[in-house]
Order: sequence, then structure tokens, then C-alpha cells
Amino acid sequence: MEKVTGLIAAAFTPFHEDGAINHSLIPALVDKLVEDGLRGIFVCGSNGEGPNMTTAERMEVAEAFVKAAGKRLLVFVHVGHSSIAEARLLAAHAQAIGADAISAVAAFYFKPTSVQNLADSMAQIAAAAPELPFYYYHIPHLTGVGMDMIEFLRIAGPAIPNLAGIKYTATSLQEYQSCLEYENGKFDILFGLDEMLLPAMAVGAKGAIGSTYTFAAPLYLKTMELFKAGRMDEARASHAYMVEVIRYLVKYPPIPGQKAIMQMLGWNLGPCRLPLTTFSPEAYNRFQGELARLSFFDKAPARKTVQTS
Amino acid sequence: MEKVTGLIAAAFTPFHEDGAINHSLIPALVDKLVEDGLRGIFVCGSNGEGPNMTTAERMEVAEAFVKAAGKRLLVFVHVGHSSIAEARLLAAHAQAIGADAISAVAAFYFKPTSVQNLADSMAQIAAAAPELPFYYYHIPHLTGVGMDMIEFLRIAGPAIPNLAGIKYTATSLQEYQSCLEYENGKFDILFGLDEMLLPAMAVGAKGAIGSTYTFAAPLYLKTMELFKAGRMDEARASHAYMVEVIRYLVKYPPIPGQKAIMQMLGWNLGPCRLPLTTFSPEAYNRFQGELARLSFFDKAPARKTVQTS
Amino acid sequence: MEKVTGLIAAAFTPFHEDGAINHSLIPALVDKLVEDGLRGIFVCGSNGEGPNMTTAERMEVAEAFVKAAGKRLLVFVHVGHSSIAEARLLAAHAQAIGADAISAVAAFYFKPTSVQNLADSMAQIAAAAPELPFYYYHIPHLTGVGMDMIEFLRIAGPAIPNLAGIKYTATSLQEYQSCLEYENGKFDILFGLDEMLLPAMAVGAKGAIGSTYTFAAPLYLKTMELFKAGRMDEARASHAYMVEVIRYLVKYPPIPGQKAIMQMLGWNLGPCRLPLTTFSPEAYNRFQGELARLSFFDKAPARKTVQTS
Amino acid sequence: MEKVTGLIAAAFTPFHEDGAINHSLIPALVDKLVEDGLRGIFVCGSNGEGPNMTTAERMEVAEAFVKAAGKRLLVFVHVGHSSIAEARLLAAHAQAIGADAISAVAAFYFKPTSVQNLADSMAQIAAAAPELPFYYYHIPHLTGVGMDMIEFLRIAGPAIPNLAGIKYTATSLQEYQSCLEYENGKFDILFGLDEMLLPAMAVGAKGAIGSTYTFAAPLYLKTMELFKAGRMDEARASHAYMVEVIRYLVKYPPIPGQKAIMQMLGWNLGPCRLPLTTFSPEAYNRFQGELARLSFFDKAPARKTVQTS
Repeated sequence: MEKVTGLIAAAFTPFHEDGAINHSLIPALVDKLVEDGLRGIFVCGSNGEGPNMTTAERMEVAEAFVKAAGKRLLVFVHVGHSSIAEARLLAAHAQAIGADAISAVAAFYFKPTSVQNLADSMAQIAAAAPELPFYYYHIPHLTGVGMDMIEFLRIAGPAIPNLAGIKYTATSLQEYQSCLEYENGKFDILFGLDEMLLPAMAVGAKGAIGSTYTFAAPLYLKTMELFKAGRMDEARASHAYMVEVIRYLVKYPPIPGQKAIMQMLGWNLGPCRLPLTTFSPEAYNRFQGELARLSFFDKAPARKTVQTS
Repeated sequence: MEKVTGLIAAAFTPFHEDGAINHSLIPALVDKLVEDGLRGIFVCGSNGEGPNMTTAERMEVAEAFVKAAGKRLLVFVHVGHSSIAEARLLAAHAQAIGADAISAVAAFYFKPTSVQNLADSMAQIAAAAPELPFYYYHIPHLTGVGMDMIEFLRIAGPAIPNLAGIKYTATSLQEYQSCLEYENGKFDILFGLDEMLLPAMAVGAKGAIGSTYTFAAPLYLKTMELFKAGRMDEARASHAYMVEVIRYLVKYPPIPGQKAIMQMLGWNLGPCRLPLTTFSPEAYNRFQGELARLSFFDKAPARKTVQTS
Repeated sequence: MEKVTGLIAAAFTPFHEDGAINHSLIPALVDKLVEDGLRGIFVCGSNGEGPNMTTAERMEVAEAFVKAAGKRLLVFVHVGHSSIAEARLLAAHAQAIGADAISAVAAFYFKPTSVQNLADSMAQIAAAAPELPFYYYHIPHLTGVGMDMIEFLRIAGPAIPNLAGIKYTATSLQEYQSCLEYENGKFDILFGLDEMLLPAMAVGAKGAIGSTYTFAAPLYLKTMELFKAGRMDEARASHAYMVEVIRYLVKYPPIPGQKAIMQMLGWNLGPCRLPLTTFSPEAYNRFQGELARLSFFDKAPARKTVQTS
Repeated sequence: MEKVTGLIAAAFTPFHEDGAINHSLIPALVDKLVEDGLRGIFVCGSNGEGPNMTTAERMEVAEAFVKAAGKRLLVFVHVGHSSIAEARLLAAHAQAIGADAISAVAAFYFKPTSVQNLADSMAQIAAAAPELPFYYYHIPHLTGVGMDMIEFLRIAGPAIPNLAGIKYTATSLQEYQSCLEYENGKFDILFGLDEMLLPAMAVGAKGAIGSTYTFAAPLYLKTMELFKAGRMDEARASHAYMVEVIRYLVKYPPIPGQKAIMQMLGWNLGPCRLPLTTFSPEAYNRFQGELARLSFFDKAPARKTVQTS
């Protein structure tokens, strides 16, 4: 697989009100992402509530997205799990169903205690899907595992034949830049913090994975165009808008907040599963008002046809 | 179930060298724990590497221990998981196989953000095994979830009909004492830090769950006897011995370290699974030497017959 | 100096409403502590807001307490500072004015990064008051410096001729016990968490330093008597009372909360200095009501004569 | 004072071998910084070991730098202290000696617990130097105080008449961008992480304060020129060089490491004070070798005349 350029949406998993998976919405959601110009989707990750689902459910959801994608966009399946044995099952399944890549966070109950230990752990997972590119998912604020990523590339590069790169979800752009430039840019280092996309581009980011790309990709794509055209002041102003939206968002629990945004835009993706919470009507209305004052609903693409499911 | 008095061993899971579960050792291990005077076993917890196993494996291991126990001692099955849905499967299974109690840590990828949220999450798990006593497993240094346990009892008490108590693995003995005394001692608050057992008894502990009880229960039981007899100075001296042993232990990764101790005592429980590590021969020998200098092998009960499996 | 047995009050510093030091209250406060049966006072520590005062003010306050004590009780002067150079000035001053001992926290802006580094730092401070016993003040939750205290004794013991021991303010009673027993009890390890005094006694504590001893020493002394008499159940019940009081206290900022308690008991010690806050009248009244419901004012000794200053 | 554009060097404090301040080097050091194109110096901050010095020493050092600067570059005096009372003395002194601005970290023993509390604390300090611009020094990884900086500007803006802005030393560029744009760019938000200067410029940084500007300002100024000229690829390559140098640096304790670099370049600034450490000859040689392999000594400006003091 070539290096990824463009945006990959960290897709939400639609649930019914009773918490069961709502498969029926997945095809329309994927169609929307294709139309919005996404390059890929990342499924069963943090935003997809992968860690809230059973292994069987994760496999079902991955399969539904792969099928809906129909090779129109890349499908990354997140297979990270506290149990490496379980992660291997998910990895093998992802390969079997025709996913384009897999990715895994570090084990997060017992945590790797050294870069070597992390690389050993990831090697076991990657080996279960040897035909797929493997991306280590670096997200220290959620997993509590904050290893040196240059050391990781140095150790894991030779040890994991299908290591493609890193989904890099951290603010340390100096290390991010070093990873991009490591061995003449050998690895694909996808950036994972939407609200820092512009400064990440300044140090070389070409591809990014993020949750807000699910509902606001066109706004980011415009920022990217302006940056590429050397129009920095306009790029910064364009980027500032999403920075402000996210500033409001993160005053709420962010995954429930984004499911609320999706609902405001016509996509009823249902509740989140515990321990994640779901917006109360009051919080929903307050948040909707805040976004309206930012003219968000004039800018983000709403669902074209009313949702019926 | 009455309140538990005495010691419950947090059992290790035996693995073969290739990482597969070594079921053959479980009956002998349980026999040993019965002989050592244990009141119960806690299976698939942290020390049992529950979070390192697949759901299917956890079920197998729980079943093997329940069968081996044959009601000679209580079997607590740990069902905690990052996915509450998966934890519910484990809970229902534990009830079906005749376990005596279940216990669960807080979800540890997405983490509860309030006591109410924690109680809501635990209620979903407890409801999947309604006939079994449920113990919340409070272990903030591993899960990162450090809620107020008095508030938890206040909220979860009425909301979880089968809430029996807490496996309390934290050093905050003032809160531990408050939990013991909450509503005239309504709940069973089992203490989880072996090296603080004596001071925990001073504030009222009657039952405890811990990993070192697997290999050193007689030493702790002697301390408990001395304490109950009011012979505090002797109790303190007795307790000091295991404090010193554990002080050496925790300079190593503690679960691999305890599997090494078991091996020194004649029980080859095999390696740990990643991301846990396994002792190198050098570390094993050094640790064995340290324990020998503490006369540990004169005091801890060795396996009676040589291991053949 | 012999090892300290009994209780040492971590004294509050009285301020006027405008934040200036209220020296006039110090003699009466010391008289009260003598009457309450305290063995010593610890001045300019955390509770005395030492880190909120200038060096000149700390010297004044230390001097006032030493003078008021008049050798009726021991005076420990806390000299810890982010600057070791400044701490040395405080240490030399404490010796010059006739204090009985000094104590210092680890530097807390730049923090020691190893036990050796901590011992080197403490050695510089202790050397500035060579005639006074030096106690390292271990309080990791405030300083963020959480070194191994046995290693500290091992390295600092030979390196600091006047090392007397540790003011141990942490919940890890296994390490506390090991420190008490290190080299046959060579060092004086004073316990610093009032709400864990009873379990600390179970592992050998004989002396303790704490803030609530300023207003509730008689209640703790009774617990200590019961413990020494082997009446564990009564000791536990007695201790439980202060555990509950402190449970209410720590829902508020604890230093302002204790200044509020002192005011309820007739001692107007004035506001705290920023960044510490001072109780609003509403919070004061609510807290007073909570304590009244615990019958606190029937148990804690009130000021005998009405405060006039 | 207008907003600062360009680079401000976080100056090191020269010490003699015995730890006393080496005033004699200050004039030459300032001359060098003027020649290197710096816009200002920041004295007695973290890199200047302000927290390691006494108040009297901090005043002496500030005075020496102000005098040496002679208005050729701006002098920011850091007055932050665990004691606000002591910080006020430093602030008043800075104004009296003709400094251009003051800056303060949050109190770091007792720490502000809310944005309001932080703003109240900073207001007391700023009021002691009412004629000087005041910059809040946001450095959460050292102080442990990580407040929302937009909220800080909202509350402190009206409350602190001389609030000029923030020295922003954190990786969260989305918040940094928001601060720059707050109220149409009302405040001067100087960036404090040298290794992220380029991405910070992408979101609008015009001025920056940092320690490596003391020895490598010309290399950064080149990056800034390329960025302003819209030559992003070259700017990135230029920036990458210092990212790599700093990557090597931070494997060592960074302040001792930078004093070592200064010595390699001909400036013997002496040891660091405890708890900071000083390079051993072995570490010094190893580090020098690493930098030589990066051709660092061909790029960074060496001292023109051999140091004699």
C-alpha cells in the first residue's frame, strides 16, 4: 500500500437505542464519506467504540464497513485489545474479510514497559495479518503508554515485516516530524489530532485520521488546499474555525458530543455504550445552540435525505 | 454468601511454554491451596492474567478452577473487561458453571468519569449474574480509576441488588476503614494488598485477597493468629518478614516474579503472556539467591511431590 | 535527641485579615498545645503555609514559636524550599534561634531525579544546621517526589551525620514499617497521616506529626492509649471518629478547612494566603453544621477564654 | 510595549565552580546575544535556574543582565516563586531596576486549583510592578498547573491591567492558536518550545522565548525567514536540524546539557545547582561526539575570543 494522503474518518459505530449495533446505517454513512472526499475510514477505533464492543461485534462491524466501502475508500480496522490473543483474532479476521490495513493500540491493562516490549507485543499482533499493512496506534493520553516513537521505528521496523507506520495521536510535533523524516520517510505517519492538522502539515503531514473528518471533512480539505497553495494566512483562518468548534466540543465528553453533532446533521447514530455517556436533551440543546452561534450548520454538510431507520 | 473471613489466593494461570493454557496443573494447585488453609481463590484476575486471555480462554480457566475446587473453597471469578458487553458474557458464564462470586474492575480503556457512571457500569455487569454476589474490584493503580468508595457504596448499594462488597486494592486505609464500617458493616470489604495486611487488620479487615497467599499463606495465617491473640509485637515481627520478601519481589515485575517464586517452590506455571515478561535465567538466579538469603525456602511450603507435567 | 514519642502538631500560622502575620496569637496557641498534651510542634510546614511566606517571614514565625515554646515542647522548623540555597539560610537560622530539629521537603520546582540526587540535596541543607537533628520530609503527593525511602536511608544515613529520620507522609505502610525496622530501628520515622495513625501504630509508629493534632490531640491520645492497652476494638472505634471528621474535612480544601475549624473552636487564625483560599461564610456555615452533626464540638477542646485580639 | 517579534533567549545563569554567581561573564554573554540577532533575554527563568537561587541572588542577576543589556534588547525578568509574597518583592525590584517586562509561573508548592484562583494569584504579583507588562508563564509539565489559557485570558484580562500576554510553553497548538486569535489578537502569546517553533509559526507565532536560542539563534532565524518567504519545504528541512539536535539533548537532563553545549562553544557557565546535576566528563565527551556527528559545531556560532575568566 502506498502512503496515504488525504483524510481518513475515524468512524462512529451506529447503535440502536437498546445498544445493539445498527447495521442499517453503515452503507449510507460510507456513501456520505465517499462524497465528502475522504480517502479512507478507520473502524472500531476509539471513536468507533471498539473497546466497548465484544470481539464478535467488532468483527461484524468491520465486515459491514468493508462491504459498504467496496474499495471506494481504504478501510483500516482497529484490532487493539487488552489481550494480545484477542487482538490476533481480530487481525486475522480483518485480513480474511479484505480490509486494507490494521492498526492496534498498545495493550492497556498490563502496559508495555519498554520500547522493546511494545515492539514485541505489536509483532505478535501484526503477524496474525501478515498480508496487511500494520500501523501502531500511538495515543498516550488514552492508553497511558507514551514510548519514544523513533525508538519504536528503529526496533519494530526490522522486526515487523508489515509495519507500515504509525497513527500518531499526540501533540509532540517535534517527534512527529522526526518520525516522518526517519530513514528518508520510510514510514507512513498519519496524524491523529484534527485540531492540530495545520501545524502538523507544516512539519510534513500528508495524511490524517480523525473523528471530526466524519462530519467536517470539506472544511479541512479546504484548509489543506490553501496550505498547499502557500496561502498560509488563509489556511490559518480556515483552520481556526474548526479549532473553535472543537474547543466547544471538548467541554463535553467528546465521543458523545460528536454523536450529538451527527444527529444534528441528520444522522441518528444512537447512544454510546457505558462507560461512555449519552447527551441529555438539555446538553444536546445547549451544544446545538453553541454550534449554531458559530454558524456551524451553515458550513458542515447535512444529511441529504431524512433518516428513516 | 456470608462475609468472607480468611485468605483468598489470587491464582496464577498456568501456561505451557508456547503460551497455551496448561490445564493439567490446576487440580494440584487447588489441592495445595486447600491444604495451605486458603478460604477461596480468585481466578482470571490481574495475577491470573485475565486481561491477557481471550474470553473463551477465561471461561475455560474459570471452569477448570470451579471444577477443581469442588466446593472445598470459594471461587471468585474475575469478569472485568474493557468492554462491558464482554464482561456480561463472562459474568453469565461464571454463574452457569457454579462459581461462588464474581468481581470486576472498572472499564479501563474508556474509564468511568464519576461514581454514578461507575455504578451504572457495574450494575450492567452484576445484572448478568444476578444469583451471584458481586464485588467491585477497586485497583486504581492499575485501572487509573480512583473513585470515592464510600460514595460508590452509597450509590451502588441500592442500585445493585447483588452487590456484596469491594475487593479493595489501595493503600488508603482510612477509606478502607470507612467502607468496613459503612451502614454498620453491611458490605464485605476484602483487602487486596498483602504487604499491608496487618495494618488493615488493625482497622478491621477480616478477609483478604492476594497473590502472595498462593505461596505463603501459612506465614500470613500465623500473623493473623498473633494479631487476634493480641500479641501485637509478635504479629508485627511476623508480618515484617513478608514485607521484606515483597520488597525484594517488587524490584522485579511482580507477576513474572511470583511465577518465578512458584517455580522455585516446585510449580512450573510457565511464562507470562505479553506485554508481561518472563524472567531470564540470570534474573531468576539472582532473585532465587536473594530469597535464599532471606531463608525464604525454609519458610514457604514447597511442592510435596516433584512436578512431572 | 531521643526518638520522639507522642504527637507533634503541624502548627498553622496566624495571619491578620490583610495577610500580615499575627504574632500575638502564637503564645496562646502554644500554651494550648502544651495543655493538650502535645510533645512538639512543627512550624512553617505545609499547614503552616511555609511555602507561602517569604524567607524573612518564615524566620520571624519560627522565632516566635521557639520563644513561646520555652522548651516545654519540641520545635521542629521546616526549612524546605525550591531553592536549596534559601533552605540553607533557613536551616542556619533555625539552629541559631534554638530550634530542636529541622526538616525539609525535596526541592519541588526542579525535582530530584534519583535517590542519590535527593540525598545530595538534603545533605547540603542538613549541613547548614549541623547541630540539629535533620528529618527528611517525605510527602510525595505534594512535592511529586516519591523516592524509595529505604534506599534513601541507605544512602543518606552515612552521608548526613545529623540525619535523625523521616517525617513520613504517605500511605505506603509496608515501606513505613521497613523504615522503622531499618538497621534495628536506627532512625526516627514519624508518621504524617493523621487519619491512618492507628494502622501506622500497628506496624510500629510511636510518634506522629499532623495538622489535626492542633485541634483534636486528646481524641488521638485516647486512641493511642487504647491501642497500647491492647484494646483493639475500642481503639478502632475511637480512631473511626477522627477518620469520619477528616472525611468531611477533605471535601474542602484542607488547610482552609482546618483554619475554619480552629475559628469554630475560638481561634481566629485569619485567612490563608493565595493560592490557598479562604472559606466563604456559606461554606463555613455548612461545614460547621456537618461537624455539629458529628457532635464534634462536644468532643474537641474549645478555646478556654474568648479571643480578644 | 509592542508585541514582541523575533527570538528571546532564556538565558543561563553563569556560576563559578563553587556555585557562586559568576557575574563577570554576563556582559559578554549579552553582547553575543545582541550579535546573534536576539530581540530579548528572559532571565532567572527555568533555564536561568531562578528557582535554585535565593531572592537576593535573583535580584543581583536580574540587575546584571539589565545593565549589560543597556536597552539593546528587551529584558524579561522571571519573578515566579512558590511564595507570592516573595514574587512580589522580585516584581517590584524588576521594575525598580528598569527591566522591560516581568513574567511568573504559577505557585508550584500549593498550586492554583481553578482559573480564577490562578488569575487572583497572578494579579497580586502583577500589581507589584504596575508599570511593567506582565506575562503569565504557562509551563504545565514543570509546575503541574495546566489551566485553560483562553479562560485565563477571559478572567485575567480585565483583572490585571498590565497583563501583556503569555509565555506559552506547551505542545497544545490548538489552544495556542486560540490564544493568539483571542479578541482579535489582543494579547502577546510568546511560544516557548523551540523544537516546535515552525509548527507554531504555522498557527501564527511571531515571537518566541527559548533556551536553545542562546546558542543557535541564527539557525532558527533562517527557518523563520524561509517560512515568511513561503518556502515551506526548505523551512521544514531547516527546522528539522534543530529538532534532531534537541532530540539528542533531551536524552540528557536538558539544562545541564545546554550548559555543556555552551562550554563546547567556548562559554564556561559553570555547574548547575542541585537538584540539577552537572555533566560528568564521560557524558560531556559522549554528548560532544554526538553533536559533532551532527556537524553541530560547523553550524552553531562559537565564542569569538577564548574565555579567560
